[in-house]
Amino acid sequence: MTFNSFISRRDFNLTLLAALPVIVFRSPQSNKSLRVDGQRINSHLTELAQFGRTAAGGTSRVAYSDLDLRARDYTMKLMRDVKLDINIDAAGNIIGSLPGIDSNLKPLMIGSHIDSVPDGGSFDGQVGSMGAIEVAQTLVEHNVRLRHPLEVVIFQNEEGGTIGSTAMARGLTEKDLNVVTNSKKTVREGIKFIGGDPDRVASPLRKKGDVAAYVELHIEQGGSLAADKIDIGVVEGIVGVYWWEVTVEGFANHAGTTPMNQRHDALLAAAKYIEAVNRVVTSIPGRQVGTVGKIQAFPNAFNVVPGRVNTSLGLRDLDAAKVKTMFEKILSEVRQIEADTGTKFEFKQVNASKPALTDTRIRKAIDDTAKSLGLSTKLLPSGAGHDAQEIAELCPVGMIFVPSRDGISHSPREFSRAEDITNGVNVLLQTVLKLDAELSN
Amino acid sequence: MTFNSFISRRDFNLTLLAALPVIVFRSPQSNKSLRVDGQRINSHLTELAQFGRTAAGGTSRVAYSDLDLRARDYTMKLMRDVKLDINIDAAGNIIGSLPGIDSNLKPLMIGSHIDSVPDGGSFDGQVGSMGAIEVAQTLVEHNVRLRHPLEVVIFQNEEGGTIGSTAMARGLTEKDLNVVTNSKKTVREGIKFIGGDPDRVASPLRKKGDVAAYVELHIEQGGSLAADKIDIGVVEGIVGVYWWEVTVEGFANHAGTTPMNQRHDALLAAAKYIEAVNRVVTSIPGRQVGTVGKIQAFPNAFNVVPGRVNTSLGLRDLDAAKVKTMFEKILSEVRQIEADTGTKFEFKQVNASKPALTDTRIRKAIDDTAKSLGLSTKLLPSGAGHDAQEIAELCPVGMIFVPSRDGISHSPREFSRAEDITNGVNVLLQTVLKLDAELSN
Repeated sequence: MTFNSFISRRDFNLTLLAALPVIVFRSPQSNKSLRVDGQRINSHLTELAQFGRTAAGGTSRVAYSDLDLRARDYTMKLMRDVKLDINIDAAGNIIGSLPGIDSNLKPLMIGSHIDSVPDGGSFDGQVGSMGAIEVAQTLVEHNVRLRHPLEVVIFQNEEGGTIGSTAMARGLTEKDLNVVTNSKKTVREGIKFIGGDPDRVASPLRKKGDVAAYVELHIEQGGSLAADKIDIGVVEGIVGVYWWEVTVEGFANHAGTTPMNQRHDALLAAAKYIEAVNRVVTSIPGRQVGTVGKIQAFPNAFNVVPGRVNTSLGLRDLDAAKVKTMFEKILSEVRQIEADTGTKFEFKQVNASKPALTDTRIRKAIDDTAKSLGLSTKLLPSGAGHDAQEIAELCPVGMIFVPSRDGISHSPREFSRAEDITNGVNVLLQTVLKLDAELSN
Repeated sequence: MTFNSFISRRDFNLTLLAALPVIVFRSPQSNKSLRVDGQRINSHLTELAQFGRTAAGGTSRVAYSDLDLRARDYTMKLMRDVKLDINIDAAGNIIGSLPGIDSNLKPLMIGSHIDSVPDGGSFDGQVGSMGAIEVAQTLVEHNVRLRHPLEVVIFQNEEGGTIGSTAMARGLTEKDLNVVTNSKKTVREGIKFIGGDPDRVASPLRKKGDVAAYVELHIEQGGSLAADKIDIGVVEGIVGVYWWEVTVEGFANHAGTTPMNQRHDALLAAAKYIEAVNRVVTSIPGRQVGTVGKIQAFPNAFNVVPGRVNTSLGLRDLDAAKVKTMFEKILSEVRQIEADTGTKFEFKQVNASKPALTDTRIRKAIDDTAKSLGLSTKLLPSGAGHDAQEIAELCPVGMIFVPSRDGISHSPREFSRAEDITNGVNVLLQTVLKLDAELSN
């Protein structure tokens, strides 16, 4: 948009206000009929996807890259068009605010992120970011003022480990700041690059109670909604993510001359372990997942019985106690595998991010809202990490999922239908209106 | 040994001949009491091990290296000490000959190789090579003349794929000659380097029937004799070696958001396959072996369900039909795994060296001989490849195994006891005498 069109849009809004001076306080009933502009959201998504568009049709726009900076400028221009008050916090998060009517109330926060994984898609984070701006724009265009202040937040570097939201909720350590990101810049350099101040992020940027609630719209990134043909996912929580590096020690020996019963085959032991992980994880009811994603055998030759294997374990669930139970069952199977194969396993935990449950009141608000819009819903966990899991440290959070085609994500093949996206943004808008009416803090 | 000591040794032999002029035709009975000089064999092994001795206490002397050349010179000096007639054939094999009494008989051949794998041990090939020279030396020192000519052969580049024996029995292809070896030289360059003529190796250097029999003494390289405390292994044959590259295609997806029942996990499928290989191979009676030695997963990350796995299959047995049966059973299990995991396997055969059976008469000669020396014996296959498997194309072959400590080979930790080695060389000597008496070709 040019400067001239920006002026004319503002003139239009002023004209509207002048023509309808009493519409400022719309009744809750009339707010229920408010709808976002689906075509506009999807145009914004298409425009945003140009910053880092790949030959494969996806988006490659890692945090702190030049493309990230240009996409942030584009996003701030959209915010300015809606006359949001723009601020970049010390972590580099972009915050666009609308004032509320009641100055005693804490802000309602909505948003997501616009950085992508290398060679990623054009929907992850971007749908929630453009959606949050669209919600603000719809409110402004219809002169709906909320009781609460509204903050549209574009968190920086979600894909590099929810860095912006971590800074806001918990602060960043020196170690966090020294991590070299996909942009080749450290987090510290990246924060400076996007206009933040890495010297002021050691303490949390917000305190518990500073925010009334946070609601994030996101693509599912899994195939659950698409498979069941459900319009809206009501997220129960963001699962805890636990990773272990696993080492299997056997004894390397000649694959021709070593009889089967004299082997200490580390790869056979690893194979039994991989099967055991799958068996343990799928033998318990629920939506927990367990994955062995990494493997390396030594010496990795046709004619040598593998003497050592490096592999991995990843467990995720909403319930940390269930993860513990699964891990213990896996360990117990491993003890048997060690005895059967003459090998020795070691587990070294390298990640343990706790589950973050969503707020039941917000879940209900999302579910009621979706149903009142005639949309089908389903309660489901988020298997992937999100900024909402960090913000859960500060306030009640909720998440709205829209279907991902074939459950594919972090890929140029990531895709969500325009209709599904519009539905999601309408649910976000109506949930904000509902929470604004209901929440007293 | 110095030139002076060489002279004095020859003088000693001449003295011996002068003193005992009628001993040339010893009776078979007195030959049975002939014994090799155990101390001398083991001294020769120690001297030979100096060419390429490693800090770890092993030997690193790959074919066509300067160290290989020096070790070959040392070996030829030992042959000259015994007054063998030395010839280097077009392939670069060293052949030290003793004439026989009956000019109509074809030579009896004994020998092995002196090249090693990189960072290998000081026994593999070397025991059989020094042992064969010791047999000739014992015969010469005791003025025993065989009916058959005797050829002590040091085959070149056994570890690089039985190159010297292949040239002798089948000839080398252009492709064989162009292989770059561990010495950095091609086989063609290597053959020139050690005094052969690569332009004359396309056709087999010997024809079927040119040789009466070949007997090779070797360390077991497996743990079977040591575990059962058996002195001598009578080799049934050298197993066929069959290798396949195996590819498993699944679908890479997010390890957090993809429900367990929607995955196409290539690594889980590979794990089931590795277990199936072990189950099939161990469910049939016999000494066949099956090994999955290689594995690589893609993208090999904690948070991605593996979409592709490259792995391997190795099957070995004396009976090619049994290998075929095992492979078919594995394939049948794989069809089920594909259905269970939503993946697709592909097998590409990259090696198929046929089994080579030893001659039953030679086996019996070895077994009878060992027992008459008061040694325990055991019939067993050779899981590793040997020059004998190539020479089996030309004539009946036999192999004598001595125990390897803990079955370790191709390692600086490779070790066979001096006593076991001496026993093996005595069995080789007496087997040669027995075959010389029995064989009429």
